Amino acid sequence: MTAICSMIIFQPHGIRVETTEGRTILEVANEAGIKINSICGGEGLCGKCRIIIREGKQNLSPPTEAEKRVLSKEDLANNFRLACQTKIEKEGLIIIEVPPESQIDRQRLLLRGLEREIKPQPAIRKLLLRLKEPSLIDVVADADRLLGAVESQTGLKVKMDYEALKRVPHLLRQGKWRVSVTLWRDEEIISVEPDFSSDLYGFAVDVGTTKLAGYLVDLNNGKIIASASMMNPQIVYGEDVITRIKFASEDEENLKALNRSVIEGINEMILEACKEARLSPEKIYDMTVAGNTAMHHIFLGIPPNYVALMPYSAALQSAVDVKARELGVKINPGAYVHALPAIAGFVGGDAIADVLATEIYNADGISMLIDIGTNTEIVLGNKENLVACSCASGPAFEGAHIKHGMRAVSGAIEHIWINPDTFEVGYKTIDDEKPHGLCGSAIIDVVAEMLKTGLIDSSGRFVTKAETPRLRRKGNSVEFVIAWKDETSNAYDIVVTQNDVREIQLAKAAIYTGASVLMKHRKIQPSDIQRVYLAGAFGNYVDPQNAKIIGMYPDVPLERVKFVGNTAGSGARMTLISIDSRKTAEDLAKRIEYVELGADPNFQDEFLKATYLPHMEPGRFPSVMAILDKRSNRL
Amino acid sequence: MTAICSMIIFQPHGIRVETTEGRTILEVANEAGIKINSICGGEGLCGKCRIIIREGKQNLSPPTEAEKRVLSKEDLANNFRLACQTKIEKEGLIIIEVPPESQIDRQRLLLRGLEREIKPQPAIRKLLLRLKEPSLIDVVADADRLLGAVESQTGLKVKMDYEALKRVPHLLRQGKWRVSVTLWRDEEIISVEPDFSSDLYGFAVDVGTTKLAGYLVDLNNGKIIASASMMNPQIVYGEDVITRIKFASEDEENLKALNRSVIEGINEMILEACKEARLSPEKIYDMTVAGNTAMHHIFLGIPPNYVALMPYSAALQSAVDVKARELGVKINPGAYVHALPAIAGFVGGDAIADVLATEIYNADGISMLIDIGTNTEIVLGNKENLVACSCASGPAFEGAHIKHGMRAVSGAIEHIWINPDTFEVGYKTIDDEKPHGLCGSAIIDVVAEMLKTGLIDSSGRFVTKAETPRLRRKGNSVEFVIAWKDETSNAYDIVVTQNDVREIQLAKAAIYTGASVLMKHRKIQPSDIQRVYLAGAFGNYVDPQNAKIIGMYPDVPLERVKFVGNTAGSGARMTLISIDSRKTAEDLAKRIEYVELGADPNFQDEFLKATYLPHMEPGRFPSVMAILDKRSNRL
Repeated sequence: MTAICSMIIFQPHGIRVETTEGRTILEVANEAGIKINSICGGEGLCGKCRIIIREGKQNLSPPTEAEKRVLSKEDLANNFRLACQTKIEKEGLIIIEVPPESQIDRQRLLLRGLEREIKPQPAIRKLLLRLKEPSLIDVVADADRLLGAVESQTGLKVKMDYEALKRVPHLLRQGKWRVSVTLWRDEEIISVEPDFSSDLYGFAVDVGTTKLAGYLVDLNNGKIIASASMMNPQIVYGEDVITRIKFASEDEENLKALNRSVIEGINEMILEACKEARLSPEKIYDMTVAGNTAMHHIFLGIPPNYVALMPYSAALQSAVDVKARELGVKINPGAYVHALPAIAGFVGGDAIADVLATEIYNADGISMLIDIGTNTEIVLGNKENLVACSCASGPAFEGAHIKHGMRAVSGAIEHIWINPDTFEVGYKTIDDEKPHGLCGSAIIDVVAEMLKTGLIDSSGRFVTKAETPRLRRKGNSVEFVIAWKDETSNAYDIVVTQNDVREIQLAKAAIYTGASVLMKHRKIQPSDIQRVYLAGAFGNYVDPQNAKIIGMYPDVPLERVKFVGNTAGSGARMTLISIDSRKTAEDLAKRIEYVELGADPNFQDEFLKATYLPHMEPGRFPSVMAILDKRSNRL
Repeated sequence: MTAICSMIIFQPHGIRVETTEGRTILEVANEAGIKINSICGGEGLCGKCRIIIREGKQNLSPPTEAEKRVLSKEDLANNFRLACQTKIEKEGLIIIEVPPESQIDRQRLLLRGLEREIKPQPAIRKLLLRLKEPSLIDVVADADRLLGAVESQTGLKVKMDYEALKRVPHLLRQGKWRVSVTLWRDEEIISVEPDFSSDLYGFAVDVGTTKLAGYLVDLNNGKIIASASMMNPQIVYGEDVITRIKFASEDEENLKALNRSVIEGINEMILEACKEARLSPEKIYDMTVAGNTAMHHIFLGIPPNYVALMPYSAALQSAVDVKARELGVKINPGAYVHALPAIAGFVGGDAIADVLATEIYNADGISMLIDIGTNTEIVLGNKENLVACSCASGPAFEGAHIKHGMRAVSGAIEHIWINPDTFEVGYKTIDDEKPHGLCGSAIIDVVAEMLKTGLIDSSGRFVTKAETPRLRRKGNSVEFVIAWKDETSNAYDIVVTQNDVREIQLAKAAIYTGASVLMKHRKIQPSDIQRVYLAGAFGNYVDPQNAKIIGMYPDVPLERVKFVGNTAGSGARMTLISIDSRKTAEDLAKRIEYVELGADPNFQDEFLKATYLPHMEPGRFPSVMAILDKRSNRL
């Protein structure tokens, strides 16, 4: 049997691929470099790889049972399919549209985080040197001549990077014995260039489980000159840290694949930021990386296996400097990458970065910092004492597991409000485009609004007696329509399902439970908390009021709560700009006490009670109850 | 036209290769990994790629003009061809014998050099550590746990190699928290192993222009446990440093090719030595390398271009430590390779190693050290003052440019004597096998013996009135038969040609001139010299008397002259065994004054006079003249 040859055109990419029968659209897309969301690993479970067949339907396999489960009849009628389930069966032309919500690629938006102004004091500096030209009576070798010039200008005896060394003979002559030299920590020459420029750039990276964010910084003044962000490409190997650790543990090659994928992602961001700033990546001489322990280990290629196994030992807590070229990071080949230190368990350099950026370690009053993500870190305390934990909150707030969840790109609904009388919905999309789906902030909003308007009760169940066509049965379940299909860009109603609400309940319960275990540990009441910082690499602003209404964090007066954006990125940037911040980070890593949530005997009970909206014990949320009590009694 | 398919069998390797028409035997052999000597780069000039066609002559191209020039009629009749000239023309079986003198591979013999007994004090040491197993109340990360254990055992705060770090989590558990840790210079953990062994090995390498020598050393006691040597595989790119530098300068890829070839050669020696010692190369934790500046630069992948151009600047003089894995050297991946410091010009770490091994830097009396090779280094002086130069003596003493020159393998003639009355020749071959050719020591012997017996005169010309069938005309020239073809293993007479004598005259003149320029520089007479050390990576013993008779070094009483073998290898080994020796080497590199021979205004005149045997001014060699005056007057 000879293989059948088909031509597939992917839109909006415009990429043409020739392929053979029996392969799935997802496989073909992957090979062609077209990144389609796929959280469940091609099992047909997550429904994230939705594609639209624009032509050639007759050449494809019929919908599978999995697709019939995940896609609505309407979807199927509109030629939606799952890329992982759809196989090529017959020869011919196939045109596929990958809708925005199914594309993994760069996010257009990135909210920067709160950041303290700090004096630039980077790990690197540049020297401009004029060397004496060698002669028959002055036969000092090139590298020794350079090292001697550095010593006479600075008094420092330094080493030279091997890659820099190899370039020295040509570069000295190219620069006519006038060169610029980059020193790392006053210890090592990492780069020699045949120019007299004092350009000095660095790149700071926040490696999130779901998102990557990178910032290109001018280290002469500490200013961001470009930034980039994207989905963590590791997502195709599993959506949360546990799945990825499990995958990495199965085979050495798997760890390598995860490592390569994040490094490639970072290299893409570097290129993008450098393109924006019209800069060669070779002009980046330093880099810092913050991430939770699993992301940190995988980034460094260190087996993360034992982080997930009792007694949850990390492989490395201290900060570490590794040559960029050993990691495959494409910046100046002599540059080091500084990975921030970690605390313990999953609480990594991202939490340290949060603490640095919010400066809660310097405050007299008690602060609580919550960095919301697929893994959520919480730090509680003040300048005397800080405790931290990590919560497996899952990716719901990042749009995964949510039927119409999506990233914060153009057309994502970012805020939602519901009229308590008519149940009519108002929303705001990014760039005011036609809506495709809901991003993280809108997901918090919609649950809070449904709770306020009585569309759901405190157990999270839809209150079906609400009289509105937006609330409707769907099979065995109920869903609420946010946007009718004629308003949307994708020809189907954008809804919130009962299951979506359940996902949010579990996610916020994980966070609240972490917070309450830490408070119990430190014997702290909500009223003791002077500041709550909500952080996260969200594409947009999270409404602290709505987050409190759903019970994500303890009932603290709203004026004390602040959404601070991506502070992990800010802290990574601070350690890039200043070695003082690196020192503080190392001190913090030793100082912050780690609390293992699993070791708390009441954890499961606390968690269960926290799944209620806002909580099974309304007394814990007096200010929220005051709002909810005003809700319509018509229901 | 379709290509013709032929089968070639190479003997004695027994390797079968399928190939197509139009290709030369040398090309096919190279691709099959069969290393055939080729100094001229396939131009048909050097005659080193002689092969014997055992079958399939009719399938090959007829002898070229170049072959007719280089090969004798006898050779051609005996089916000798040059591999670089012989092309496959017709389909069929071809059986090729590669005679020993045409094979580039390991030399079976290696003379060790003079070596001082030194106390082992290596750059590395091993710690055996028992770690506390982590628990829920002791969550220190793996690497930090290990670093803490090192600190508590030694008081040292050390770094950890990145490759070692990546292995830590698995290794600690594999070793059940009992591990051995290798420390480099008390600064860095370079290896962690799940055992409790204190095994500690190192490898020292002498990178000669023509030969490589490697020594596997037990660093717990400083003893050599295995050694290996081979031709420098760079030889296919040119026989002397100038040719190789020229090649490297032409293209970045050329430098890479040279670099790869020497690294691969070293890796082969490492494997061979480890096999002999039944050791994994991972158990080698340190390595030192000595070589002249060109070999040193190419080994490190540093462009050697400017070493050969006025004002002859090296790229690097200081000692340098580079990670083995960055160089591609296959020992423990965390290990460093220490390249010895250089003096200036071409006088590199090999000369420093010679000085270390002979300890002339500690002597009251004046010593002269001559390290004979394709590039010959000379150092003169005592503990107060040392000067050095480098002589382009060429590869004649290593068997190249000599018609029947060969390496010191089984069957090489190593010593020769000639009966002054009958001109009959006595010789000794390595392993007492049938002779194939002459190695370095025999080449010196034969010229000295011919001079003593009056077969050649002081201008180096054959004295044709000698009545012996061994001295015969050959075309326009004259040659002397060392061994008749019925005595040899290769069916032809082994001879010394007039041209061979010329090559030796030029080579020894280069050395003598270097010595005399240094002496003039220091205002030293031969009688002031207390010690002459003749060194070199010869396969066997060089006769100091014969070397003096041909005028290779100044006329110093024989009891003051010593052949000390491969002291470059010894010195490399000393720096491997002791960091004190590394310190001394660095001091020496700064202390030894470099003399640029080309800058001496009388250089050419001195050189020309030195081409005579022993010298144009007999007064310089009174003791040699006393011997020569006894020579037979019958001529």
